Amino acid sequence: MNMQELIKPLVQKNDTKILLIVLDGVGGLPVNGKTELEAANTPNLDKLAKESACGLHVPVAYGITPGSGPGHLGIFGYDPVECQIGRGILEALGLGLEVRKTDVAVRCNYATIKEGIITDRRAGRIPTEKNKVLTGRLQNEIKKIDDAELIFEPGMEHRFAVIMRFPENLQPDSAMINDTDPQKEGKAPLPAQPLSKNAERVSQVAEKLINRAHEILKGEERANFILTRGFSSMPHIPTFKDAFGLNALAIATYPMYRGLAKLVEMNTPALEGSVEDEVKFLKQKYNEYDFFFLHVKKVDSYGEDGNFEGKAARLEEFDKLLPEILGLKPDVLIITGDHSTPSLLKSHSWHPVPVLLKSPYVLGGLCSAFSERECVKGELGIFPAVNLLPLALANAGRLKKFGA
Amino acid sequence: MNMQELIKPLVQKNDTKILLIVLDGVGGLPVNGKTELEAANTPNLDKLAKESACGLHVPVAYGITPGSGPGHLGIFGYDPVECQIGRGILEALGLGLEVRKTDVAVRCNYATIKEGIITDRRAGRIPTEKNKVLTGRLQNEIKKIDDAELIFEPGMEHRFAVIMRFPENLQPDSAMINDTDPQKEGKAPLPAQPLSKNAERVSQVAEKLINRAHEILKGEERANFILTRGFSSMPHIPTFKDAFGLNALAIATYPMYRGLAKLVEMNTPALEGSVEDEVKFLKQKYNEYDFFFLHVKKVDSYGEDGNFEGKAARLEEFDKLLPEILGLKPDVLIITGDHSTPSLLKSHSWHPVPVLLKSPYVLGGLCSAFSERECVKGELGIFPAVNLLPLALANAGRLKKFGA
Repeated sequence: MNMQELIKPLVQKNDTKILLIVLDGVGGLPVNGKTELEAANTPNLDKLAKESACGLHVPVAYGITPGSGPGHLGIFGYDPVECQIGRGILEALGLGLEVRKTDVAVRCNYATIKEGIITDRRAGRIPTEKNKVLTGRLQNEIKKIDDAELIFEPGMEHRFAVIMRFPENLQPDSAMINDTDPQKEGKAPLPAQPLSKNAERVSQVAEKLINRAHEILKGEERANFILTRGFSSMPHIPTFKDAFGLNALAIATYPMYRGLAKLVEMNTPALEGSVEDEVKFLKQKYNEYDFFFLHVKKVDSYGEDGNFEGKAARLEEFDKLLPEILGLKPDVLIITGDHSTPSLLKSHSWHPVPVLLKSPYVLGGLCSAFSERECVKGELGIFPAVNLLPLALANAGRLKKFGA
Repeated sequence: MNMQELIKPLVQKNDTKILLIVLDGVGGLPVNGKTELEAANTPNLDKLAKESACGLHVPVAYGITPGSGPGHLGIFGYDPVECQIGRGILEALGLGLEVRKTDVAVRCNYATIKEGIITDRRAGRIPTEKNKVLTGRLQNEIKKIDDAELIFEPGMEHRFAVIMRFPENLQPDSAMINDTDPQKEGKAPLPAQPLSKNAERVSQVAEKLINRAHEILKGEERANFILTRGFSSMPHIPTFKDAFGLNALAIATYPMYRGLAKLVEMNTPALEGSVEDEVKFLKQKYNEYDFFFLHVKKVDSYGEDGNFEGKAARLEEFDKLLPEILGLKPDVLIITGDHSTPSLLKSHSWHPVPVLLKSPYVLGGLCSAFSERECVKGELGIFPAVNLLPLALANAGRLKKFGA
């Protein structure tokens, strides 16, 4: 039995509020003896850690470096191995496209084809500007195929995403179509073969799309063909409300994270601006929801750039906003990340992620600061990310007793 | 593979003795900075913690508050999610009834019915004294239905339990019968429908019981009908002896806990008195068994009452008895709880439960006292309750090597 099956019959509603703050990529590694969290001057986070339940969560499993998708699904209470999100969906979400239950999304590359053979799988990495022009042309000329509306969105260099929007919700296996990318130059593209009965209709749209795109692009020297990968539809997972009885608001300025929240049907209004603007928005909407996911992107971005001081500075910026957030007096406040992004590695990593949980029902007093090493001493221990949400519910009085 | 399958082939016997002391609801939360364990003066427990392996067990899962059933099954080495005990069984055990593998147990309410409609599901919460009279009358007039012997036991107010004792052991699905309680006033009671082939015979007994009870009670103004919930038979789980090779004695003064021990076929003599009496009994029987479960109820009771000082005082009382218990020199001594019951919450809670394991084969030296916060620092970490029994067996030299 998975965790969601266990807790669903125990969920009860009340008027408590739970605030989950995700400092994207918060966990780090020491450089000159200190991690980013240790080097940053964060008196408010440190004071909070002293009186909170602390620990570290393992996003997927020991040694596994999560992408943003599994990283967020875990802390949203979904087993990130059971609930895998298709690459096409993630690509579309990352480019800011709205994805619905009626949609199949697919990652595409511009490529070069000569006499039926792919000679460059990335079309010489055409400039992003060129990509925008070509993708705009495809969108203008291909608006519908069969009963599917087509939505194109350019990415970086040779990459773009396509959504095929059908008139009604799709079956779970409707997007079971192999990649047409042959993975090696010097080979012919593969046909978009349906791997299930329900995928036949989608595969026909895909084949027509590939042919029409070739027709439109054939005058191009490099980008005269498209390769498709990661056909996928929305995962069939319970909504956040169904699973946990929570009316949730996602506060995120990057489309990818709103998209991830939307996967579980949190409310995800478009939003721009700084973390300060996000906190302003949180205050405005505080009475309307009982769960808030507030996403702070820039911590991760500086980690990815290998900018230790920049990442520490973003943590200090957030720390300054903390008193204002605490002023809302949420019943349960969790501060954590979706994964670690040590500047030392310039990338996401497998390291467990510091967690702080503040509620009236914790021991506290075990950690002197909010950092990787202090959280090791905390009462939550090192635990699977998927356990975080039940813990939030318990601390909010939202779970009944199991058994008599 | 579950834990029991893993360890069963590794079990070996010897003449060691394992003593598991359950301070019911021992875990707490700070009030004025200290938990009950921290506030209580428990020099013997603290000294023992210093030289023991300590940690905290998670009874069911992060955030899950266990009832007494799952709480005990976990520390007895049974997965409390896989081995769920029916509500009828728990009710019967709690009222002190002996339940056998031949039995179906069911929780009942006295209710008020008018012209086929339930007008009060609790018969106006009739006094317990009235309940005793009515239940006595039912027992007198209904001794047998078909081939099932009927056993009635009054509870508090409108509640009572019934056991239907059949001539032979029942199949696992024999009690799959829906509740007849419609859950809302203004509705007709539901028929006791069998949800499996094997349940048909039991459902017929149930229907006849409900009709005969109505016949007997029809002159009553309020308690003129009975509603039934939680039909259940004994769980089909391996006995403690089969699973772990242990000849076990349960020492408990409350029927519920003897009942839980009986589920796994520990020896469970009826016993009354104080914790001191329990320890006396332990000493008397010490040569006859190799595993002892000694249950200390009152720690939980004071926690449930929100009586912080009372709970701390019960811990101090137990502490005074500890030298006498240590005098028995058990090979492995475990002191823990089945769940936490913080006075602050006046109820069971989801918090991990302090554990102390004393044997010659531990590190020790990590914790300065027996408390929630000190146990966080211990060598056992925070671990699922179901892992406790294999640890006891290992420390008692009762588990062979796994693999070559």
